[in-house]
Amino acid sequence: MAEYLAPLRDMAFVLHEIAGLGRVAQLPGCEEASADVVEAILAEAARFAGAVLSPLNRVGDRAGTRCHDGVVTMPPGFGEAYRQFIDGGWNGLGCDPAHGGQGLPGLVSAAVQEMWKSANMAFSLCSMLTLGAAEALERFGSAEQKAMFLPKLVAGSWTGTMNITEPQAGSDLGAIRCRAEPRVDGSYKLFGQKIFISYGEHDLAENIIHLVLARLPGAPEGVKGLSLLLVPKFLVEADGTLGPRNDLRCVSIEHKLGIHASPTAVMSFGDDGGATGHLVGPANAGLEAMFVMMNAARFAVGLEGLGLSERAYQQALAHAKERVQGREIGGAATAVPIVRHPDVRRMLMSMKSRVEAMRALAYFVAAAQDVATRHPDAAERQRNQACVDLMVPVVKGWFTENAVDIASLGMQVHGGMGYIEETGAAQHLRDARITTIYEGTTGIQASDLLWRKIHRDGGAALGAACARMRQTLAELEQSAGADFAAIHAAFAHGVAALEEAAAFVVAHATQDSRGVAVGAVPLLNLMGIVSGGWMMARSALAARRKSDAGNADSFLEGKIVTARFYADHVLAAAPGLAWTVTRGSPGALALGEEQF
Amino acid sequence: MAEYLAPLRDMAFVLHEIAGLGRVAQLPGCEEASADVVEAILAEAARFAGAVLSPLNRVGDRAGTRCHDGVVTMPPGFGEAYRQFIDGGWNGLGCDPAHGGQGLPGLVSAAVQEMWKSANMAFSLCSMLTLGAAEALERFGSAEQKAMFLPKLVAGSWTGTMNITEPQAGSDLGAIRCRAEPRVDGSYKLFGQKIFISYGEHDLAENIIHLVLARLPGAPEGVKGLSLLLVPKFLVEADGTLGPRNDLRCVSIEHKLGIHASPTAVMSFGDDGGATGHLVGPANAGLEAMFVMMNAARFAVGLEGLGLSERAYQQALAHAKERVQGREIGGAATAVPIVRHPDVRRMLMSMKSRVEAMRALAYFVAAAQDVATRHPDAAERQRNQACVDLMVPVVKGWFTENAVDIASLGMQVHGGMGYIEETGAAQHLRDARITTIYEGTTGIQASDLLWRKIHRDGGAALGAACARMRQTLAELEQSAGADFAAIHAAFAHGVAALEEAAAFVVAHATQDSRGVAVGAVPLLNLMGIVSGGWMMARSALAARRKSDAGNADSFLEGKIVTARFYADHVLAAAPGLAWTVTRGSPGALALGEEQF
Repeated sequence: MAEYLAPLRDMAFVLHEIAGLGRVAQLPGCEEASADVVEAILAEAARFAGAVLSPLNRVGDRAGTRCHDGVVTMPPGFGEAYRQFIDGGWNGLGCDPAHGGQGLPGLVSAAVQEMWKSANMAFSLCSMLTLGAAEALERFGSAEQKAMFLPKLVAGSWTGTMNITEPQAGSDLGAIRCRAEPRVDGSYKLFGQKIFISYGEHDLAENIIHLVLARLPGAPEGVKGLSLLLVPKFLVEADGTLGPRNDLRCVSIEHKLGIHASPTAVMSFGDDGGATGHLVGPANAGLEAMFVMMNAARFAVGLEGLGLSERAYQQALAHAKERVQGREIGGAATAVPIVRHPDVRRMLMSMKSRVEAMRALAYFVAAAQDVATRHPDAAERQRNQACVDLMVPVVKGWFTENAVDIASLGMQVHGGMGYIEETGAAQHLRDARITTIYEGTTGIQASDLLWRKIHRDGGAALGAACARMRQTLAELEQSAGADFAAIHAAFAHGVAALEEAAAFVVAHATQDSRGVAVGAVPLLNLMGIVSGGWMMARSALAARRKSDAGNADSFLEGKIVTARFYADHVLAAAPGLAWTVTRGSPGALALGEEQF
Repeated sequence: MAEYLAPLRDMAFVLHEIAGLGRVAQLPGCEEASADVVEAILAEAARFAGAVLSPLNRVGDRAGTRCHDGVVTMPPGFGEAYRQFIDGGWNGLGCDPAHGGQGLPGLVSAAVQEMWKSANMAFSLCSMLTLGAAEALERFGSAEQKAMFLPKLVAGSWTGTMNITEPQAGSDLGAIRCRAEPRVDGSYKLFGQKIFISYGEHDLAENIIHLVLARLPGAPEGVKGLSLLLVPKFLVEADGTLGPRNDLRCVSIEHKLGIHASPTAVMSFGDDGGATGHLVGPANAGLEAMFVMMNAARFAVGLEGLGLSERAYQQALAHAKERVQGREIGGAATAVPIVRHPDVRRMLMSMKSRVEAMRALAYFVAAAQDVATRHPDAAERQRNQACVDLMVPVVKGWFTENAVDIASLGMQVHGGMGYIEETGAAQHLRDARITTIYEGTTGIQASDLLWRKIHRDGGAALGAACARMRQTLAELEQSAGADFAAIHAAFAHGVAALEEAAAFVVAHATQDSRGVAVGAVPLLNLMGIVSGGWMMARSALAARRKSDAGNADSFLEGKIVTARFYADHVLAAAPGLAWTVTRGSPGALALGEEQF
């Protein structure tokens, strides 16, 4: 299995031509993100991803993690890699310099994180969760909490977790029962069990900071009675040194389909009198804080979908160029590399074009987040935040569904060898399969998109996005040639389908909420396909502009061809999805439960 | 994890209403397949599948098979189950009574085999390969070979294999190098290595009959120089008793993503002077014999897709009815079983409707095969054989692609629990993932459909199928109510899309073979979706007829609702696929290899 090679030219193209790195670098606080600096950072990240993390991907899959008496042992090499990772300053790349971060824009951080996901998704989860915890503390923690914990989390010398799920409380956070009782010193005693805690226990860092959703005495029922508590594995003394072990333990590690190197812990708090915790933010406001962590995590899981897809594509491509089998249709009688067979090309192009669409959309959203956070103009911030809010469920939901399919296609390109574990293609499918589930299933993302992001504002944010898509359509119409005509035709159908589906949802959401909800996932897929098509169209237009400016080369031609493939093979599905959104409810809801 | 419960009522509905068991039972040699007898057989098979095979499914997955010094040990319980399986006469259910079979129609055999696949796909592969070997011998073996081997293979006391693939010869059989040299006594010495040999070695039976594709001295190059040789694990004396061990051995067993209980062997022949083999059929005619085995196997792998989908659906449904999580949209504030949530219903209906479409199509094709084999009228035989030939790649290709998606959806219904191996949902995905690869990948099936089944006869067989679909459309138009109107609307678009795509293929195949080949898999999917829609429409019409005849019940209502779901959620994709078939080639073929 070939090691991961970061697609630096593709990344640079998207950063500059689609996401507007130049404009992001003009935002307050982003001044250091010059093109040269970013290029150097990406090159160094690519080296680390390819040389250190990628070779450990299969090692981690085979060895997995082991739990003995509450002590979790990571796979060989992970400890040393993690040390290099934090020594290199990678963990805090996008964090506030006030806490030791590098202060780079989220856009640059997204590109770097894509590399970690591609190279070794299981490894990358540790940092992802640590950064989520840091973000929640940054937003909601007290000054003392920030001072005590943020520098460690930003550096990565301590890691963080999200403790949300309980056996009876999965997608339904309102069912959480974990409880926290106040002590006289202002701290809390925490009791309860949490499941599916990624990196809940490990041997990579000297301390683990658990952020735990729990209920204080007398809290309201449901999600409005959840509070966020900070519960360190080792208590921290006032001078910042580590104190005694807290009353919490890893009960077991799950035996999962994939991401074997990511320890998924069952955590028990308070078996011995109560785990010491500290309230983060106000009582009963835990959900909001958790959403901060979760939104960052959802975008990051979308990047996992992108990263795994890229890795699966690279591996399938390498195999397709090497594997000699069968003769060319209409060609000579000698065997050729399978990349020459039309169906293998179709599979590779299907993977490649969706990878490029996802990358463009991810970086586009990351740039919008930077603008939403840092732009001096409030209206500009708001406009961009609305775009980000609209797109985050698409990035999480659509990217990860794509990743499962793309990893599966990657196996298919390998034929029988793909089914043999030693080949490594199956691992990508096993790893990808969690991404549509955790941090909110695809159904939850689709529900978020439908109700909070489209219905709540009467379709305004989506309408704004569609208006921008129509500007791109107009540009396509001005562009000569069969490729642009094909892209225009499919994209026009796609935008119309999205508008039709969204109008239906807005019109019927109130009086037929169950019927509209049937269309949530088809709508999410439609939105993903069309948004991806928008990005591919912009990519083709940018390539044409650069070619016209005298920079014509095969890379830029490839962008146009790939956009055309996407139009006729991916966007072509859009009208069918609109049909399902607008007509699909009676068939889905009419059966009684006993008729299943 | 619940054990498998055979869906006997669904099966009976399809057997009688779609596949026409009554007409099949009137065919010469099928007279014993009365409704009562078939019902009794299915009930007994259901018991064996649920009580014996199903509990071993997870056992086999966990234990896997082990190979030590060429000896393969099957998982615990498999030996005893296999003994019961052959003692019950299940292996030869559809075989010729002249060789000890039960002589039941292929239609009945298909329903019974579906159960084995659902209950324990890895177990069922042994019998599938044995029956393939028996069929090849029946067609091409000498009288002596038949007398010596068929009774044992039909009984299952000896098992069979297909030895085709070599490291350099996967989809391309022309690259096979295994060679056979004649001995003076008329036998052959065989030399070479074969890979991916299912049940190539095991401890279930006293002998294993390998059918091996090899080249005789001076054979032409490519597929026209392949001969089929019968190579027993233990040589057989003239009196039928077992003689010395042959010169062949299992080198190793592959470490696969799934079907862990099915030993996938690397076989080495002739390390010690040559394995003794016997030519089956004429020299250099091995490909034709192999196609007999392969066509039967392709249909059977389609049944695997159906069976795994049914099993995944049953497990997801059981979970959705048990798992209480979240409150109902627009309902009370109490938590409900997740089956009430619209998106969970959508997933379950998506699984259920495709399972029903696949079952109907599979049994329809099995019945057509019975007619093609046994009908007294040659024109009727020919017409049905053309239908079977057209549909076999669809059954293999579309069912198995569905199975991967349905098994994945089954995991999704389980949420986080689905990713934990102990839940058992992930096994279905791991097991299903081989089905799109072995016995010819989806790309190979699509190529077979496009070139041999559609292009070669200028679209005649497909046109005949479409004409029958249009008869069903006319019946739908005569049926009152919103459900039938919806089914008609989507099916009409589907048939038109299929006709458009097929016309394009027929018109352009000669002058643009590479471009047309890009659309092969989309065409296969389109054909599957529309053929499945045809079956669902016929199912709805039959349910309406039975209801109108005074048998109205919720089961029959359910058939109509499920057909409507299929129309708006599955058939809706058909026009988009026709778009891809007719427009998708430029984007797929324009890139140079270096541009990937």
